[in-house]
Amino acid sequence: MSGNTFGKIFKIATWGESRGPGVGVVVEGCPAGLPLKESEIQKELDRRKTGQSKVTTTRRESDKIRFMSGVFQGQTTGTPISMLVENQDADSSKYELIKDLYRPGHADYTYQMKYGRRDYRGGGRSSARETVGRVAAGAIARKLLKRQKIKITGYTRQIGSLRAKNFDFREIEKNIVRCPDKIMADKMIAHVMKVRKKGDSVGGVVEVVAEGVPPGLGEPVFDRLDADLAKAVMSIPAVKGVEIGVGFEAAEMLGSECNDAFIMKGRKIATRTNHAGGILGGISNGETIVLRLVVKPTSSINKTQDTVTRTGKKSTINVEGRHDPCICPRAVPIAEAMVALTLIDHFLRQQLSQLK
Amino acid sequence: MSGNTFGKIFKIATWGESRGPGVGVVVEGCPAGLPLKESEIQKELDRRKTGQSKVTTTRRESDKIRFMSGVFQGQTTGTPISMLVENQDADSSKYELIKDLYRPGHADYTYQMKYGRRDYRGGGRSSARETVGRVAAGAIARKLLKRQKIKITGYTRQIGSLRAKNFDFREIEKNIVRCPDKIMADKMIAHVMKVRKKGDSVGGVVEVVAEGVPPGLGEPVFDRLDADLAKAVMSIPAVKGVEIGVGFEAAEMLGSECNDAFIMKGRKIATRTNHAGGILGGISNGETIVLRLVVKPTSSINKTQDTVTRTGKKSTINVEGRHDPCICPRAVPIAEAMVALTLIDHFLRQQLSQLK
Amino acid sequence: MSGNTFGKIFKIATWGESRGPGVGVVVEGCPAGLPLKESEIQKELDRRKTGQSKVTTTRRESDKIRFMSGVFQGQTTGTPISMLVENQDADSSKYELIKDLYRPGHADYTYQMKYGRRDYRGGGRSSARETVGRVAAGAIARKLLKRQKIKITGYTRQIGSLRAKNFDFREIEKNIVRCPDKIMADKMIAHVMKVRKKGDSVGGVVEVVAEGVPPGLGEPVFDRLDADLAKAVMSIPAVKGVEIGVGFEAAEMLGSECNDAFIMKGRKIATRTNHAGGILGGISNGETIVLRLVVKPTSSINKTQDTVTRTGKKSTINVEGRHDPCICPRAVPIAEAMVALTLIDHFLRQQLSQLK
Amino acid sequence: MSGNTFGKIFKIATWGESRGPGVGVVVEGCPAGLPLKESEIQKELDRRKTGQSKVTTTRRESDKIRFMSGVFQGQTTGTPISMLVENQDADSSKYELIKDLYRPGHADYTYQMKYGRRDYRGGGRSSARETVGRVAAGAIARKLLKRQKIKITGYTRQIGSLRAKNFDFREIEKNIVRCPDKIMADKMIAHVMKVRKKGDSVGGVVEVVAEGVPPGLGEPVFDRLDADLAKAVMSIPAVKGVEIGVGFEAAEMLGSECNDAFIMKGRKIATRTNHAGGILGGISNGETIVLRLVVKPTSSINKTQDTVTRTGKKSTINVEGRHDPCICPRAVPIAEAMVALTLIDHFLRQQLSQLK
Repeated sequence: MSGNTFGKIFKIATWGESRGPGVGVVVEGCPAGLPLKESEIQKELDRRKTGQSKVTTTRRESDKIRFMSGVFQGQTTGTPISMLVENQDADSSKYELIKDLYRPGHADYTYQMKYGRRDYRGGGRSSARETVGRVAAGAIARKLLKRQKIKITGYTRQIGSLRAKNFDFREIEKNIVRCPDKIMADKMIAHVMKVRKKGDSVGGVVEVVAEGVPPGLGEPVFDRLDADLAKAVMSIPAVKGVEIGVGFEAAEMLGSECNDAFIMKGRKIATRTNHAGGILGGISNGETIVLRLVVKPTSSINKTQDTVTRTGKKSTINVEGRHDPCICPRAVPIAEAMVALTLIDHFLRQQLSQLK
Repeated sequence: MSGNTFGKIFKIATWGESRGPGVGVVVEGCPAGLPLKESEIQKELDRRKTGQSKVTTTRRESDKIRFMSGVFQGQTTGTPISMLVENQDADSSKYELIKDLYRPGHADYTYQMKYGRRDYRGGGRSSARETVGRVAAGAIARKLLKRQKIKITGYTRQIGSLRAKNFDFREIEKNIVRCPDKIMADKMIAHVMKVRKKGDSVGGVVEVVAEGVPPGLGEPVFDRLDADLAKAVMSIPAVKGVEIGVGFEAAEMLGSECNDAFIMKGRKIATRTNHAGGILGGISNGETIVLRLVVKPTSSINKTQDTVTRTGKKSTINVEGRHDPCICPRAVPIAEAMVALTLIDHFLRQQLSQLK
Repeated sequence: MSGNTFGKIFKIATWGESRGPGVGVVVEGCPAGLPLKESEIQKELDRRKTGQSKVTTTRRESDKIRFMSGVFQGQTTGTPISMLVENQDADSSKYELIKDLYRPGHADYTYQMKYGRRDYRGGGRSSARETVGRVAAGAIARKLLKRQKIKITGYTRQIGSLRAKNFDFREIEKNIVRCPDKIMADKMIAHVMKVRKKGDSVGGVVEVVAEGVPPGLGEPVFDRLDADLAKAVMSIPAVKGVEIGVGFEAAEMLGSECNDAFIMKGRKIATRTNHAGGILGGISNGETIVLRLVVKPTSSINKTQDTVTRTGKKSTINVEGRHDPCICPRAVPIAEAMVALTLIDHFLRQQLSQLK
Repeated sequence: MSGNTFGKIFKIATWGESRGPGVGVVVEGCPAGLPLKESEIQKELDRRKTGQSKVTTTRRESDKIRFMSGVFQGQTTGTPISMLVENQDADSSKYELIKDLYRPGHADYTYQMKYGRRDYRGGGRSSARETVGRVAAGAIARKLLKRQKIKITGYTRQIGSLRAKNFDFREIEKNIVRCPDKIMADKMIAHVMKVRKKGDSVGGVVEVVAEGVPPGLGEPVFDRLDADLAKAVMSIPAVKGVEIGVGFEAAEMLGSECNDAFIMKGRKIATRTNHAGGILGGISNGETIVLRLVVKPTSSINKTQDTVTRTGKKSTINVEGRHDPCICPRAVPIAEAMVALTLIDHFLRQQLSQLK
């Protein structure tokens, strides 16, 4: 029972393989009447695309989006929105080499075991190329959220042991690692380039904040907002952990430190601190939602690694080619998209909680 | 659109409030032919129940389980298994005090905002009492997994700054904090008792490992095994973060360190290290699954805290009563249950991946 | 993958076997703030219950309903509403006779083949007793619909070859076959009693109309309102067909006869005729929804029938006991419940179709 | 909450409008390892397409299918199968006429009311063109069923008052109304041509039988096989009723007539008659499944009809153009597809019913 669908009301289904004819997404449940242009989607896809800077893979894909249904005279009609990006012709012959060899850290082995076969060209379905559909759908979600004054911002918080200390959101898109700390950004870039030169890769932490989320989003007891956000970002390739608010620091805190006191901010109920990261009992409390996710270092590295063949013979592999030395910069728009998709779904679900 | 259901094939729906008539669960999708006794469920519930030791709340609930359907002549029939625990009569009058007051760290405010009202007696639906149904259903899941030689073990890994260093699984159920490190367990107990005496509470980290999971479980691209495990444990009250394998440490690793080389173990393909925590590309790889979750310190503390009333007046609150000073010991069986429910669901889903 | 859940937003899960400890239902997705009493549910259950007249089975079950969760201080809270009817102790020994024998027309054989076993006491899960949960949940749905001025009325339209000709809704609950045609009702009763005396049973047609349904309900292209209504009533035991509006008569009509012309009724757009039965393109058009379902004659008859044993030996069976000679009278409240459950689900879904 | 998805395990999502860029379908849950070619899909689409004979619309669309994902080296990979048919450029200017006018029998009015707007070109989403995706997905389902020796055959049983009397399945594809009765086929064709000449249309009944279905398919109590089949075919445009086995005739039968006696056929348990149409208690019993659906006469007729404008002014309309005078011939492959999709879904679900 395949799991290519995300969301319950605002529901997306992505399809497509890295080196197949194309990748795409069908968005169901977008309300009718939203003005929508392909260029608005394209803008977000361009933040995700390959070859955008020296800290990403230098492979170039134009990722030109096309609406196939669901938009008429510039507005959504309430019917499924099908969006398509045709893949550009690529030489798949080089992938013959990994046909029978499992790349460490990749999904080659597990896809083979699960399905008894795999599309080995460029990682097939396990490729990050699949996230094109997520970002395209996420662009619609973000536009809907914007109407509700909900704003989502993602950025690189940490690469290797380098951590952002200043959080000036205007800086984020001004540097190629998407770090809100200008000085640290330069250090991160230098570090990534050094790692790349050695044929290696490095991990990092991405943070996403959602401002303007009203209280009441989240559906206990299983579809809590934090649980659904955790699933959303853990479904991004390479993510190995997620935390909300103080996250893992909570282990060392006392209740008297961790609890956020309720206070009045003008006529609005608020909390003095935001250790909870905007979510209490699985429901948004009106404070800024704060979420962090860790991405492992890119699995494709230009170094000789031990592995085995499909028939169980010892071998080695060196994954040559043009890979992202650090996943963070391109993970930012993907993480934002997944947070947006989760929030719009819960926003719509929340419409049904009380009698009108 | 309410979120009280978990799982797609092996599906559970919990119901019930802390101080209502009872709590329960309906399990759908359990295959027919599994021998099942109430005593097997009871055993797991007893590990979760209140009053089991000095480091838990001293409130006593017997949590007697009763099969209402789905089991006939000692075997499951393939129809829904309804399980019921009637609540014991409790004096709810003390809850009148919090009727119009929001307890910091609790879900009082968010439930009120979401639904426009709430059952304020003992936290109502947001109470950890809801997890009775999860543990009961989890006991069935664990029995099904056992037939597949899959074994799930949870334990307290950290309380405050005290971290387990030895991992002797035989020790876990021998101490009241459920820590596999005997020496550290004593220190943890002493620490929890000290915190309790001050009327405060403390956080911690629970680790769950699943041994014997075959390769192939997990449904990319959204229902990845890691994504669904993350959702599962993040849906437990008080959990603020989750990580798989090396988790957040991956941020500081290089690809050449983090990648797990493939090797042969006898005739079986395996990995030399297990940084991935048993999951690659969202699919189990046959190695032990390793997952950690952080629980915040219990929100109910016997200290004066600032808060506001429902109508927005400043106030203070002191949540008296008998509360768990640390959530970890009782969170262990709940976390195990959620991992078991996720694994059995994916085990059944995996049956459908290849043609037979 | 078990199918005991109905609805997507207003979602119910029934559980329970005919002669097990009880039957019940968990209702998810009922908005918070609906005043609700057990007596309102009981009233509908009493229309469904056994022993209510000489044309139903004379077996007597009190079917006393109990709220287990989701209602607090007389109002729904937005959390799952669990409702329970405990079965009264029954002598199950007589069912030992059918343990290894398949009753013609019943589900004994198919359950055995599907699950490899079955609870043979009183039909187990395949018993019409399961519909207690549907009627209980339907009572909540009807109350919600009533707030929207939507009214559902069911009645017996045909028994054997006797067809109602007058449709005075005030007559329906005044006669024991629930027929809106007073004169025909008497004939139907006489016919049913004659059939019963011979140990036989007879089929019939039930019609359900829903007045006041606003235009816009239904979710093309698969979850059309007519498709979901068809599924809803076809899931009732013994139903073998369903039609909307002119139904099967459409086969012999010309387009120029069948099309309903649009006209103005005051300032409201309406149709001159209602051949469509209130649904166009799978969406309600504001006219009265008209639906008919056929129920087969009760399978349990006091006559000798050929059958086989579980091991494939020829045998005969005579299903003695107290059975409904005609299903129609008790099918009316069940059909109404299923229509109500479908309409409230689509009413809630429709809230999400357009931007607000 | 949009309803463009069908099936739970073998799940399809269709998208596309009649005169938009294209129509398509994403198939999720097809097991890996099925050999599959575009030509196999094309063959089924050609049976559905326009312009195939004088009893269908003379509009010509080539409906060329293209695999976009999920098939690699001629086999399914277990990932979503995306299939696309690009629409051919069409002059949409003629649709400006119906922009503000509601065609009787069509979904113009209900889409407008539901979504507050509609794509009025060629019926937009409500067009039968949407069924391209169903037939394409159904072709895969049929191939999977064939491996299980399950064969689905559909045909026209009735047009107007002309009913097939002989059922020679070899005749079906030999005549343009797809009727298994050669003599009646000629009469039906003559009747349809006569009706067409008058600018009118006529209704009919399509029957679908599924041979070789093993006992055990169907998931009580809501996802009964008959309930899901009913939903499946009622979701086809223009269908107004469905019946299984004896269907509406059951109303006039006695239990002693209607019950199918169990007998032994060789070493296999069977029934003497098949009034149940192959389904007992919502589960297949191993007999041939027999289902009938009624289609109304095509709503588009070349006659002047009364209607109103969007702003509520009286008007008339004459839907000129090339329309199917009878829906039956082209409804046959669509009905087969929906039955196939339902059966494969339940076949896969049944794998999970018993412990292995």
